[in-house]
Amino acid sequence: MREDLDMEVIEGGVTAVQGFKASGLHCGIKRSRADLALIYTEKEASAAGVFTRNTVKAAPVILSQKHLSSGRARAVVVNSGNANACTGDRGMKDAEKMAETAANVLGIKPEEVVVASTGVIGVPLPMDKIQRGIYEAAEKLSSHGGSAAAEAIMTTDTYPKEFAVRFDLDGVTVTVGGIAKGSGMIHPNMATMLGFIATDAAVSPDMLKKALKYAVDRSFNMITVDGDTSTNDMVVVLANGLSKNPVIDSETPAYFKFLRALERVCLELAKDIVRDGEGATKFVEIEVTGASGVEEARKLALSVATSSLVKTALFGEDANWGRILAACGKTGIPFDPSKVDIFLKSKGGIEQTARGGMGLPFSEEKAARILAEKEIEIIINFNEGEASAWAWTCDLSYDYVRINASYRT
Amino acid sequence: MREDLDMEVIEGGVTAVQGFKASGLHCGIKRSRADLALIYTEKEASAAGVFTRNTVKAAPVILSQKHLSSGRARAVVVNSGNANACTGDRGMKDAEKMAETAANVLGIKPEEVVVASTGVIGVPLPMDKIQRGIYEAAEKLSSHGGSAAAEAIMTTDTYPKEFAVRFDLDGVTVTVGGIAKGSGMIHPNMATMLGFIATDAAVSPDMLKKALKYAVDRSFNMITVDGDTSTNDMVVVLANGLSKNPVIDSETPAYFKFLRALERVCLELAKDIVRDGEGATKFVEIEVTGASGVEEARKLALSVATSSLVKTALFGEDANWGRILAACGKTGIPFDPSKVDIFLKSKGGIEQTARGGMGLPFSEEKAARILAEKEIEIIINFNEGEASAWAWTCDLSYDYVRINASYRT
Repeated sequence: MREDLDMEVIEGGVTAVQGFKASGLHCGIKRSRADLALIYTEKEASAAGVFTRNTVKAAPVILSQKHLSSGRARAVVVNSGNANACTGDRGMKDAEKMAETAANVLGIKPEEVVVASTGVIGVPLPMDKIQRGIYEAAEKLSSHGGSAAAEAIMTTDTYPKEFAVRFDLDGVTVTVGGIAKGSGMIHPNMATMLGFIATDAAVSPDMLKKALKYAVDRSFNMITVDGDTSTNDMVVVLANGLSKNPVIDSETPAYFKFLRALERVCLELAKDIVRDGEGATKFVEIEVTGASGVEEARKLALSVATSSLVKTALFGEDANWGRILAACGKTGIPFDPSKVDIFLKSKGGIEQTARGGMGLPFSEEKAARILAEKEIEIIINFNEGEASAWAWTCDLSYDYVRINASYRT
Repeated sequence: MREDLDMEVIEGGVTAVQGFKASGLHCGIKRSRADLALIYTEKEASAAGVFTRNTVKAAPVILSQKHLSSGRARAVVVNSGNANACTGDRGMKDAEKMAETAANVLGIKPEEVVVASTGVIGVPLPMDKIQRGIYEAAEKLSSHGGSAAAEAIMTTDTYPKEFAVRFDLDGVTVTVGGIAKGSGMIHPNMATMLGFIATDAAVSPDMLKKALKYAVDRSFNMITVDGDTSTNDMVVVLANGLSKNPVIDSETPAYFKFLRALERVCLELAKDIVRDGEGATKFVEIEVTGASGVEEARKLALSVATSSLVKTALFGEDANWGRILAACGKTGIPFDPSKVDIFLKSKGGIEQTARGGMGLPFSEEKAARILAEKEIEIIINFNEGEASAWAWTCDLSYDYVRINASYRT
């Protein structure tokens, strides 16, 4: 959909950015796969985070919110395989111990360490393994370690997720790169979404926070695999300023250029999470256009993206526009159904299935061709205003049920 | 859960009530199954309805809301196989024609007829077949026709749903009986919920409306199969007063006794809809207790009932209390996770899986025995206040995906 010609997509994730080192390794929480990641910037960075809105927040979420209130950070330590959620006082102490251990070995302050966990709920962390792991991870820190970190934060993701862009900002080259993990579900747990983004742009903590919120609202917050929100979700950005651009501390043109790059990195990582959704066979973009306001457009797009009926119809390659319209209606957002147009689009073509809220006689054969593709767009035009929004989802397949019903196998 | 000793459950549905006749037949919308139902009371009745909150409302919903604004009705005509939704001006005219046809043949006014439809969206009604069907249905009206009507409103329901109770009210015998249909999905459509309830109690239109809203909020509005809301949902009650109790026109003890019976009928019909949910292998009651307020309790219970992760875990017979707690948290309702207790219960026993928001070491074997049952209770105690609420759901199985992905087979 939205293209950007003046930024270059480059290889790698967090360590594509100058001054960032990372590592990932197996410390023993999981049986054999990597389960501990460390990200570090030698130069102190501006830092910001957005966190799960779930009332039930895991200990590392509470701790990292506290640490990031200063707007500064130098390291991120992440374990997978255990969420350190619903673990009471001991969980809080363990999260603090993770920050302290990383701080000690890196020679920084505990408050400069962001902590994240993902995995099993309600089981205490094996702190001896994790502490040994943090020491080893610090030794292994490398400017080529981003991919190892991306791998170590995975749960049931089938591949690691990295993305980076490079662009010119006020005459200097700036890089933004990130890693993420998505739809992994481990007993007893739900999909946890983690994203860690690095940049060498110089940005004030306040503007970095503002930019991250904007970017996440249009990316990570517009994707859905099954509508559930984890106790552990977080997206964190660190900006170490090594590119030496004039510090972005207000809404200058440079801010908006940086914002676009940050949004792009968040969006590509978020889309990758959907593509790797549990049991997903299709990647679906929902475009709501002609809505009365942006908030309305976002809610409408997310309602379609979350509907089990729409998602099963997509799995069945069924041009079921009635379910799409009904999913819009159930938001309670007022609109005139008799103005709504619905289109299905993919590499296989484009077909209008409803006009003015009524079904059009459409070619079943053409619709089948469109829906047979792996990447599909649903376009819903409300013909009421100027606002648009996009959401991304996957289909709901037998494998989603299998993965989530029989985690033990 | 809630028992009632002073009301008698009796056979039948709407025609268990004196003065009501009904019929059901095949008029030709569907290939061979019954698709047209008529309910009629010779004596004019107080009447009230509650309707879908979906912004996209089918023509019969809009018409019936208008007709019921008088608080009076004498007949309900229902077709299945076609929802008459997203059918524009023609759809509105067709709904009016259904009311007029029924009014003509029964010798009443069109405004006294409630119209309902369920089935395919976006396809015009075959009005010639429906009009002939209404004539035939009027001829077949009988005081034993309730079951035929219950059968004729079905879509993919696997069995007809009827329930009736009889009780003493101020020295006279009063009956409340109803029929309902649930989780049928037909291309391109979503689950439509219809409920029609008859009573011979004498109740003013205002109090009948109040009672119906209360009862539906605690029954039909607390069930979920997949979280989607149809364009055609409605629940309607007709009270013809033939039992000759002193008219209930305020919140007297008689009102509350009547209310309890109405709630019971709505609840049993609603539960039956869940039991017959598409692909359902388990019936699950979620009890939220110790919440700070009733509205909060209702939202928490419904959030658990709607969570795909909880529903797949139940299908997998997995004692996944972390998903239950997270589904509560995602409502955004403030509560202290460290106070929450979670229990699983069935004929197989009862087991506490979390205490104070933390996992308890529990017997996997016992949990498996509990979850192996067909009817399961999840009890969540927030230990914060006095409020309780109940919601009902089914599990999310392979068959749900199969039914909704491949409607053509």
